Amino acid sequence: MEEIPKTNFSLKDVVSISDFKREDIEAVLNVAECMEKLPKERKSSLLKGKIVASLFFEPSTRTRLSFETAIQNLGAGVIGFADAKVSSVKKGETLSDTIRVVSGYADIIVMRHYIEGAARLASEVSSKPIINAGDGANQHPTQTLLDLYTIKKAFGKIDGLTIGLLGDLKYGRTVHSLAQALSLFDKIKLAFISPEELKMPEHIKEHIKGIKYEEFTELAAVLPELDVLYVTRIQRERFADPAEYEKVRGKYIVNKESLKGAKECLKIMHPLPRVNELSPELDQTKYALYFEQARNGVPVREALLYLLKDVRKW
Amino acid sequence: MEEIPKTNFSLKDVVSISDFKREDIEAVLNVAECMEKLPKERKSSLLKGKIVASLFFEPSTRTRLSFETAIQNLGAGVIGFADAKVSSVKKGETLSDTIRVVSGYADIIVMRHYIEGAARLASEVSSKPIINAGDGANQHPTQTLLDLYTIKKAFGKIDGLTIGLLGDLKYGRTVHSLAQALSLFDKIKLAFISPEELKMPEHIKEHIKGIKYEEFTELAAVLPELDVLYVTRIQRERFADPAEYEKVRGKYIVNKESLKGAKECLKIMHPLPRVNELSPELDQTKYALYFEQARNGVPVREALLYLLKDVRKW
Amino acid sequence: MEEIPKTNFSLKDVVSISDFKREDIEAVLNVAECMEKLPKERKSSLLKGKIVASLFFEPSTRTRLSFETAIQNLGAGVIGFADAKVSSVKKGETLSDTIRVVSGYADIIVMRHYIEGAARLASEVSSKPIINAGDGANQHPTQTLLDLYTIKKAFGKIDGLTIGLLGDLKYGRTVHSLAQALSLFDKIKLAFISPEELKMPEHIKEHIKGIKYEEFTELAAVLPELDVLYVTRIQRERFADPAEYEKVRGKYIVNKESLKGAKECLKIMHPLPRVNELSPELDQTKYALYFEQARNGVPVREALLYLLKDVRKW
Repeated sequence: MEEIPKTNFSLKDVVSISDFKREDIEAVLNVAECMEKLPKERKSSLLKGKIVASLFFEPSTRTRLSFETAIQNLGAGVIGFADAKVSSVKKGETLSDTIRVVSGYADIIVMRHYIEGAARLASEVSSKPIINAGDGANQHPTQTLLDLYTIKKAFGKIDGLTIGLLGDLKYGRTVHSLAQALSLFDKIKLAFISPEELKMPEHIKEHIKGIKYEEFTELAAVLPELDVLYVTRIQRERFADPAEYEKVRGKYIVNKESLKGAKECLKIMHPLPRVNELSPELDQTKYALYFEQARNGVPVREALLYLLKDVRKW
Repeated sequence: MEEIPKTNFSLKDVVSISDFKREDIEAVLNVAECMEKLPKERKSSLLKGKIVASLFFEPSTRTRLSFETAIQNLGAGVIGFADAKVSSVKKGETLSDTIRVVSGYADIIVMRHYIEGAARLASEVSSKPIINAGDGANQHPTQTLLDLYTIKKAFGKIDGLTIGLLGDLKYGRTVHSLAQALSLFDKIKLAFISPEELKMPEHIKEHIKGIKYEEFTELAAVLPELDVLYVTRIQRERFADPAEYEKVRGKYIVNKESLKGAKECLKIMHPLPRVNELSPELDQTKYALYFEQARNGVPVREALLYLLKDVRKW
Repeated sequence: MEEIPKTNFSLKDVVSISDFKREDIEAVLNVAECMEKLPKERKSSLLKGKIVASLFFEPSTRTRLSFETAIQNLGAGVIGFADAKVSSVKKGETLSDTIRVVSGYADIIVMRHYIEGAARLASEVSSKPIINAGDGANQHPTQTLLDLYTIKKAFGKIDGLTIGLLGDLKYGRTVHSLAQALSLFDKIKLAFISPEELKMPEHIKEHIKGIKYEEFTELAAVLPELDVLYVTRIQRERFADPAEYEKVRGKYIVNKESLKGAKECLKIMHPLPRVNELSPELDQTKYALYFEQARNGVPVREALLYLLKDVRKW
């Protein structure tokens, strides 16, 4: 009989990856690993009789569907909305009131909101645990956790790896949170690969100063050292001058050609959706880890729901 | 083992509070009380294998989510939509046809519609019970039932209480239905507190003429006598002259100041969402009953679903 | 104990009715018949612990709700969307990527899409079975299967019947697929009844040349021979000249008057929603089979989900 590991998971809400200590992250990754092995029967009893709210004030396919899969896999019911237009927001209700009301119905609240800080505010008024599924440009901690889980599953560990983050490092919340989380592990080396205009911000570099990192404008300059290449999209809107965008764009498209010289074991990750930055010609190669990465959202979110299921906040 | 009370609930559809006799209301309140005590395991078997349709031709968060919580708590599955835009309405199908088709899929139909009388029409063509979750400005009987349940839970009874209804008494369907329902109880005293322009309509006063009621334009004039103060919003759109709106608006905002002189046991209720009419400074006071009131929507709706689950209409 | 029939159902996806051999159709009809008799308890264990995605890139009430009823009746959970606006489509993700990701979450994918061929494409990239719930003007195979099931249930057989298809035979995907499927049965006679402008296309007539069919512009000319009259709507937009539309419209409205001379056993079918082409005065007559037809969508979709539940594609 598979045992779900006992953990010291210390959080009552999942709002920001900055709230996680290394052992909190490991608790999530260990429970997620177990979730993949549990018999369906057993798994579907873990949250039986509970209701989880899935409040998407801003649309999302991937995150919402993987949460709703996880919720139902654990035997709970789902209530919620996929779009703020079908909520009371348009009647002028405050977010605090909406959350207070929903926390009277549900046992856990998963929420995505377009305003930075919305999840923190919600966690302060909700009597039930809040899981932040993205608040504007700010935080998306469950994405970071599934990224870490994917790395650990592929390499058997996170410590000691060399990880390249490529693309828009200035505005991408995904790469900010991932860099922060990786800085909790040992002997990590990070390579930041981006156009000059989209370099990793100083406040993130300040935050992770305990680990080794280096900055590049060319993938080729660091490719041979990388275990993981994490690709993100460069959006046209980030450039004041469209000509500037056209100039850099091509340089950051990842395809078979640009991977020449990579390690055998290199794995490509991407938070998806992708547009042009990651060539479909890589989909069938040994490098492609991004569809498995998306799939890993399910056990990681199952783990979080499980770890929060009996939290009493006050 | 908790016993679910046997009742003489006489209705086959829940369309209008006017259809309820006192004993029907009491059946709902008694079963709702029991629902709060039933073990989850037992509760989730009550509608097991059934499907409940949740058809919201007009959006609503609170009502829809509390119904969908109740449905799943009882073990049934949910089908439906949160918004008419995703339905066949736009293809020109009549409401009658939509209801007839859905009554072929579901065991009970919960519906909100923007047209007055829609639920009555639906109940006439549906082979399965209809629960009206609001039809335009007309009726919202499950709101009234949860209001009554909240009062009974707070005071242990409804008979003999003095209840103030404040705000827009002319257009507010909530206060119309609540006044009607309260008129079925003994020794109730009602205080109607509103601007001159928004007084309780004559046809409602006619309907409840068996009980004591009095009209006021100032809360202070009756506050010391009230056990319950039920607050509703005054909408700008109700006033032809915006200056008139500005004049009355401030007078009907309820806050700590305006509650000076209230009974110790006074309870404030509000159907929510609120905008400005009820100050957040009251949220942490002993007066505030409105978030519990929202939460009470769940056991009351569970009770209705339970009472209708085996209805055969023809 | 009711036995679910063992079948040789050969498909791994349900994309087009053209993929069905007669024995595949019979497998579905036989399992559907059994689904109507299975005790709820047993039925709800058949897909227990599974997740079915319901991806409606284009809205639909009837099809979506009957699928979601079927999914939950079999004990599976549902994820998905009722409208492409709440999906990642608007972020520019390709359909292939969306399907690949969702096939990492769900065990079966039901999808409706506005583009012809979308379901075929999806079936090629999805590791899980795809059920086409309509792709543009192209195919809607589960509608055809429920049509066949309805006929079989009413007459005890399909072989040997005379079936009239009336209305827009040029653009109506429903009647194209139904004609094709009926051509797999024995001794079928088809009557195509339509305005000159909206006759059955040559490629369909080519496809079904093994069976007897005849074309008419007047219902009366063939009515006395019909066992089934399958009515579809004639849309104004199909006519370049509005005067032409007004001229033909009235001739193809089916009501009590137009059914004079019909067989006693005649059954009227319609895929719904109807607008004017089928008079409500027929609803209470012995001819009306269209609401039962809609209801039959549930057991037929249950059968398909059951038959695909353990498919491994690669």
